[in-house]
Amino acid sequence: MKRLTTALCAGLFLAGYAFAAQADEDADTARSLIDAAQKSPLAFDLVESLTTEVGPRLAGSAAEKRARDWAVKKLNGLGFANVHVEDFEMEGWRRGTISLLVGDPYPQRLVATALGGSIGTPVGGITASVVRFDTLAALKAAPADSLTGKIAFVDEVMTRTQEGRGYGVAVQKRAAGPSIAAKKGALALLIRSAGTDYHRNAHTGGLHYADDAPRIPAAALSNNDADQLARLLALKADVSLSLTMSSKALGKVASGNVVAEVTGSEYPDEVVLLGAHLDSWDEGTGAIDDGTGVAIVTAAAKLIIDQGAPKRTIRVVLFGSEEPGLIGAKAYVAAHKDTLSQIIMVSESDFGSGRIWRMDTGIAREDEAKADAILQVLRPLAVLPGKRTAGGGSDVSALSAAGVPAVSMVQNGWDYFDLHHTPDDTLDKIDPDDLAQNVAVYAAFALMVANTQGGFHAPKKPAAGH
Amino acid sequence: MKRLTTALCAGLFLAGYAFAAQADEDADTARSLIDAAQKSPLAFDLVESLTTEVGPRLAGSAAEKRARDWAVKKLNGLGFANVHVEDFEMEGWRRGTISLLVGDPYPQRLVATALGGSIGTPVGGITASVVRFDTLAALKAAPADSLTGKIAFVDEVMTRTQEGRGYGVAVQKRAAGPSIAAKKGALALLIRSAGTDYHRNAHTGGLHYADDAPRIPAAALSNNDADQLARLLALKADVSLSLTMSSKALGKVASGNVVAEVTGSEYPDEVVLLGAHLDSWDEGTGAIDDGTGVAIVTAAAKLIIDQGAPKRTIRVVLFGSEEPGLIGAKAYVAAHKDTLSQIIMVSESDFGSGRIWRMDTGIAREDEAKADAILQVLRPLAVLPGKRTAGGGSDVSALSAAGVPAVSMVQNGWDYFDLHHTPDDTLDKIDPDDLAQNVAVYAAFALMVANTQGGFHAPKKPAAGH
Repeated sequence: MKRLTTALCAGLFLAGYAFAAQADEDADTARSLIDAAQKSPLAFDLVESLTTEVGPRLAGSAAEKRARDWAVKKLNGLGFANVHVEDFEMEGWRRGTISLLVGDPYPQRLVATALGGSIGTPVGGITASVVRFDTLAALKAAPADSLTGKIAFVDEVMTRTQEGRGYGVAVQKRAAGPSIAAKKGALALLIRSAGTDYHRNAHTGGLHYADDAPRIPAAALSNNDADQLARLLALKADVSLSLTMSSKALGKVASGNVVAEVTGSEYPDEVVLLGAHLDSWDEGTGAIDDGTGVAIVTAAAKLIIDQGAPKRTIRVVLFGSEEPGLIGAKAYVAAHKDTLSQIIMVSESDFGSGRIWRMDTGIAREDEAKADAILQVLRPLAVLPGKRTAGGGSDVSALSAAGVPAVSMVQNGWDYFDLHHTPDDTLDKIDPDDLAQNVAVYAAFALMVANTQGGFHAPKKPAAGH
Repeated sequence: MKRLTTALCAGLFLAGYAFAAQADEDADTARSLIDAAQKSPLAFDLVESLTTEVGPRLAGSAAEKRARDWAVKKLNGLGFANVHVEDFEMEGWRRGTISLLVGDPYPQRLVATALGGSIGTPVGGITASVVRFDTLAALKAAPADSLTGKIAFVDEVMTRTQEGRGYGVAVQKRAAGPSIAAKKGALALLIRSAGTDYHRNAHTGGLHYADDAPRIPAAALSNNDADQLARLLALKADVSLSLTMSSKALGKVASGNVVAEVTGSEYPDEVVLLGAHLDSWDEGTGAIDDGTGVAIVTAAAKLIIDQGAPKRTIRVVLFGSEEPGLIGAKAYVAAHKDTLSQIIMVSESDFGSGRIWRMDTGIAREDEAKADAILQVLRPLAVLPGKRTAGGGSDVSALSAAGVPAVSMVQNGWDYFDLHHTPDDTLDKIDPDDLAQNVAVYAAFALMVANTQGGFHAPKKPAAGH
């Protein structure tokens, strides 16, 4: 027995040694990827190309189709495998024009933009008194029918934070506000933009009409113009506004997700999925939302191609139609529902080009040591350990919700909502060094996950309550 | 003789003593005005009221008329004397709409705004290839007829400087560019905005059509969009653009200057003239251009009303139609040409709310000691001695050119051309403390000039050359 025990121990020791040696080698490869990423102009070149040659690319539009063509050509050119488009349909929408005029005695034009998916006004517009609410909660608390014949104005301000927590609150007035106002009789809803800047740009973004409420037109005012309207209401309680919008639903239109892979050398059927979205709102050129994400995950995977094949497959998915409500992500989950278990990790870049400062993990307890090993490689890039829960990012949250392990690489979003969903989302806002830090993080992370012994597993779901 | 000499000397001594005592008293009054100005909310209240209740106020428009009504009411309410409007006529203009589209293979919309005074395009727009010039000098150097059937694009960048010197260069492409391009056969002119920001706002501003050139439509691109167009031209030499503008001349319309006074107690016919302009471009609310000027000179004069009458009259002139080319100022000079000698000093506030950091003087050599005495009172406000030449500011340069002494209170304009002539010229950009420093300077300056022994005189004109 002694000999057997000795041999067994030696075998375990050697296996442990091989494991450690492999982990060291992966960490070294990851570090060389970090070096290469910080010197590579590829990500900036990609986002410059996309935002210049395609420009704005509204979900379901001809421009979004051009973006898919652009992506297929670029991804093939960079040497990715299995480059293809996965088509789906979605409800098309056209912004049209908007005019918002204040009535006498203060006649002047205010800057506003239609919320994504809003219906238009009648051709002659809507002229009505405006009723202001400090918060969405105040709108909710307004008596039934108290807004009949009125335009509602939710003036709730957005809080600037590093991780974007203010958006989660601010977005509610945009998404849910129209139907809440409609149920109380409002003819239209105006909101203070879900945005933190004071540059005369209104912030668009999707709304969600409830099934049990009339659909009313909805638009966002720039922060400057929301201030102006609040001041006018302080001077005169009864301010009349004329709102004219030609926004319009277009029925079913084509969209698609673009997929490309770096094929795994040992476990090609096991997948590390890196996401970003190809569509953008139509007023900016979609540089930070989400040209940077497209560039970051593409450049990260390309660096891995150049360093030799990873053990598992790295799959880049450039989702379509994220902005109207993760339409591409939902189509992806539906199309791949039987093979989701092959995906051992998802992470999406969709928060501009601010530096990654925190890594949150949505993985099983037993895999946390592997995630910590990755974090140690990322620490020189100033990445902190984060929360032990993560959805992985916008589109891929549909995958993590379906039980796929996820990591969220949390970026500095201090300035993100100054630009988000405005005409100001343009190439000039991207800092190339910050962008390169993101590429470095994703490249090192993806390689280490792809090569990790045993892969990653989803966290246990919380036990159901008694 | 000795007695006489003694008496004369004593008299001179006493006169000198009285002079010095008066000067000390004026300096003390000026210092108390500075204290009061720094505590007063009046200037901010005024610019808030003008930009909220009237908002944008294009030269010659109904809104500019409302601004005159606003000013007359405010100035009377503040206790000014002789409040009145001096009417004149000018050429009206309407911006209309603009659309600028890039042709295949890069179809996308660019952000542009019509230059003030531009004609429109034919209804169907102009579609033509664009020819880019790095500088206005390069456009000037282009061969005759080399732009026949083309759209010219002058991509010259503006230099950011503290005192705004970059504007003097940048404005030339805007003012003179259209006729230079037209003489070479261009169908339209596009310029990179005369502005220093990267927020998706094009900068408007007046153009000047030469008599000997065809009039062509002219518009400014935002800096972001000028970059975009330059990138597209780097990808493909022959880029087609479609420009549609409905800008239009309106013929003769009414404008006016608003005048108000603080009547002098000893020399009511001698005048210290403080200027600003009431009109603004139509896209912002004219907060920094020139709501702040209106507020600064009005608040400064009001503080002097509250401290007791100055010896000479302080006249506030809120000029109309400055933006299209000092129309109000020229009308003022024409109407008052026989009494300009009564004006012993002019100065205008028309550069936003940045702090005054330098005092330039356009006065006779023998008056420089008096100006230095004023500067000593302003030194605690961080005002430096400046140049010994000065035009006094935008409108009043028409007066200094006609031989009136002038002082220019030079403001920090580091950020001014980020906002100037854009939709972003709004109230939120004004720092109340910086605004109050301006009021303090103008109040102290105006009081000391109004009370100075012997007044001020114009500098000698340079001798004519041989």
